[in-house]
Amino acid sequence: MLEELKKKVYEANMLLPKYGLVTFTWGNVSGIDRESGLFAIKPSGVPYEDLSPEDMVIVDLNGKVVEGKYRPSSDTATHVELYKAFGNIGGVVHTHSSYATSWAQAGRDIPVYGTTHADYYYGDIPCLRCLNADEVEEAYEENTGHLIVDEFKRLDRDPDAVPGCLCKNHGPFCWGKDPVHAVESAVVLEEVAKMAYRTETINPKVERAPQYLQDKHYFRKHGANAYYGQK
Amino acid sequence: MLEELKKKVYEANMLLPKYGLVTFTWGNVSGIDRESGLFAIKPSGVPYEDLSPEDMVIVDLNGKVVEGKYRPSSDTATHVELYKAFGNIGGVVHTHSSYATSWAQAGRDIPVYGTTHADYYYGDIPCLRCLNADEVEEAYEENTGHLIVDEFKRLDRDPDAVPGCLCKNHGPFCWGKDPVHAVESAVVLEEVAKMAYRTETINPKVERAPQYLQDKHYFRKHGANAYYGQK
Amino acid sequence: MLEELKKKVYEANMLLPKYGLVTFTWGNVSGIDRESGLFAIKPSGVPYEDLSPEDMVIVDLNGKVVEGKYRPSSDTATHVELYKAFGNIGGVVHTHSSYATSWAQAGRDIPVYGTTHADYYYGDIPCLRCLNADEVEEAYEENTGHLIVDEFKRLDRDPDAVPGCLCKNHGPFCWGKDPVHAVESAVVLEEVAKMAYRTETINPKVERAPQYLQDKHYFRKHGANAYYGQK
Amino acid sequence: MLEELKKKVYEANMLLPKYGLVTFTWGNVSGIDRESGLFAIKPSGVPYEDLSPEDMVIVDLNGKVVEGKYRPSSDTATHVELYKAFGNIGGVVHTHSSYATSWAQAGRDIPVYGTTHADYYYGDIPCLRCLNADEVEEAYEENTGHLIVDEFKRLDRDPDAVPGCLCKNHGPFCWGKDPVHAVESAVVLEEVAKMAYRTETINPKVERAPQYLQDKHYFRKHGANAYYGQK
Repeated sequence: MLEELKKKVYEANMLLPKYGLVTFTWGNVSGIDRESGLFAIKPSGVPYEDLSPEDMVIVDLNGKVVEGKYRPSSDTATHVELYKAFGNIGGVVHTHSSYATSWAQAGRDIPVYGTTHADYYYGDIPCLRCLNADEVEEAYEENTGHLIVDEFKRLDRDPDAVPGCLCKNHGPFCWGKDPVHAVESAVVLEEVAKMAYRTETINPKVERAPQYLQDKHYFRKHGANAYYGQK
Repeated sequence: MLEELKKKVYEANMLLPKYGLVTFTWGNVSGIDRESGLFAIKPSGVPYEDLSPEDMVIVDLNGKVVEGKYRPSSDTATHVELYKAFGNIGGVVHTHSSYATSWAQAGRDIPVYGTTHADYYYGDIPCLRCLNADEVEEAYEENTGHLIVDEFKRLDRDPDAVPGCLCKNHGPFCWGKDPVHAVESAVVLEEVAKMAYRTETINPKVERAPQYLQDKHYFRKHGANAYYGQK
Repeated sequence: MLEELKKKVYEANMLLPKYGLVTFTWGNVSGIDRESGLFAIKPSGVPYEDLSPEDMVIVDLNGKVVEGKYRPSSDTATHVELYKAFGNIGGVVHTHSSYATSWAQAGRDIPVYGTTHADYYYGDIPCLRCLNADEVEEAYEENTGHLIVDEFKRLDRDPDAVPGCLCKNHGPFCWGKDPVHAVESAVVLEEVAKMAYRTETINPKVERAPQYLQDKHYFRKHGANAYYGQK
Repeated sequence: MLEELKKKVYEANMLLPKYGLVTFTWGNVSGIDRESGLFAIKPSGVPYEDLSPEDMVIVDLNGKVVEGKYRPSSDTATHVELYKAFGNIGGVVHTHSSYATSWAQAGRDIPVYGTTHADYYYGDIPCLRCLNADEVEEAYEENTGHLIVDEFKRLDRDPDAVPGCLCKNHGPFCWGKDPVHAVESAVVLEEVAKMAYRTETINPKVERAPQYLQDKHYFRKHGANAYYGQK
């Protein structure tokens, strides 16, 4: 069942250690088949070196396991909410990558200081508030998903142009049109977080890149007039 | 004698270079067989690339070598005290891993800034005072063990929920239910130390994660109601 | 056509991941054949692991593609301007390497704090102003080239003695007598940027290395009286 | 001639890239045969991947090349002075390792903040003044050696207990009883420099480790009462 998807999701999960984004099992990738409304996700707490494609767990958009010998990632309910609300995304990633998590712990948005950021994320990368005690107690992982969806609406941010965010005191959630692009969003977030950290150390009074430069780079790679790459 | 234990302790020692926690011979792992009251420990000053399981030294809880062609780690007396006082632990690790040692040199507890920390350590990771001149002169390594045990009691910290600490001007000691979990505690400590360092640079006025979020994450992974992982 | 050059440019491109200067496709190297006035450059957006020498695109000094199945790097027009104005250079490199880009985002020249810097770059490494909105809108990549050429003239900097610069909010452009030496300039820039960052953290009031020491090191390696190396 | 020594010096040179202490050819190791008064040293500017034992150059204590097809390291005259003045050393190392060089550029001694430092270096690691213009002009590399020797005398530091130093605006010189131990001194210096950097960031008001703890660790590993290791 959905063998092709499980293979893709497995391979995307294996990119996390390749790009240095995870320690132990601190991360998970999922990918959805929009036609059936089912998604494949990493099992909870299984080491990356022991994973194989058939270990991926198939879950529906109610969060119910449909197939799989393992329990799905403990963050499954967050993935569900993102798939339900963000109609264009095909993959979701959560990690505790070091610099992104440090910004999340610091409780700050990552300001757009240059073109590396603007090439992939349109505007600052938002750090969302911590859930309150009731939200944590009631349904922690599901409410994390609700928070992301609600905050993107409230802040008028387009999830297709801002493919990730930070959850305060926790870490990043990222997404993309498929599992590999979701991982790409996570790699970029980590690199951008690292460079923003260093940028502020070098010049504590640094200001954001001008808006026209952000626009140039973002639209050089995205949308109807893009001319980066081979198509 | 205790061949299985020596193999496990050997393998746990070899995880230290794998996870980048040691330079040269600056670290050691031991593991105990509670039935016999004997533990296996790395020999002193032997390079990791030259180690084999039979090089592990067997020591009793008086610190006396029972078997082995080598002298045991110079920190053996510290391991003895931890095994005697902390009844649930099965492995002990000492390293000079870079970020954890930097916090130890700075003489500061590592504040709990996020869920990565809370997943493994309940509350701040304490930095214990430096031994005084008499304690150092009299029985340095043994007194390091006494200090850890006494300070955990005085600070009312549970060694099962706080599987490690920093010794001021020196570095970390960590433990766990077996040698591999002790190494896990050391890896987590290093990652948490690194992220806390970066967190404070990004936001010098950062505050701890709220207690209810710490509780949620710690008890999601530990105790009767844990639901992370496969059991 | 220019098979030898394409091979050299391919090999120089592959040095970028080897030296840790690129993530994904965030970099490009070109090399010119001065006799024919043609240069070879990496295709746009093609992953390094998929590249082969025949994928290099041949471009003339009007920026017109002369041969190649792919579109050339989106930064091709910048390379054209540098080749036209800097007559002694044979290779050009652009990366988003982490420390150099952080200085570019911070908008600061890299001060010459030591001999590592002085061995390769004569004087501070300049950070050039951001292009204005019109320059970006009209011909972004070409104007980046004009800016570098004009600023080196205005600042009276010799491109043969200062083989690279930073473009504000963007990242480094470097060059050299051939593609491999251009990559060398990029590696040195990243190392120097990293050490200058750390130097200022260690001593916020640090001053530049004395001019006579800069001269000694630069001319120990360059010019008629050089005595470093084998010739 | 001195084949055994050339092999040892070659192998010690190859440890520099292994331990991440060099970029390109920015480092060199030598080793001396005290009986003949001859030492072997890396040739100048030859890449590490191209080196073989027979490429090592044999030099006498007047700095004259006695054997070798290559020119010796440009720093040879510094090595000569160290061998002449420090009678117990058998190997010398120069690198531009990143953290040590950053302290050198910052012009600061590295304070002894913990036991990692005290295990190998007795007291702060001194940063020596920059040579003046005349000293640089007249005989730069030889005068670098004179400076190190004279400053150790003036500061009453024992080169056997402090196996390395920083030269302001330049980088570290280290030594040891043989080439491998000289490299060990360089590795330790880099690690200690890195941790001191981080320690000061974590606690800007940090103080040195107490003297009795420094003594304990230094003499646990050195001298008649040492008990670390296997002898």
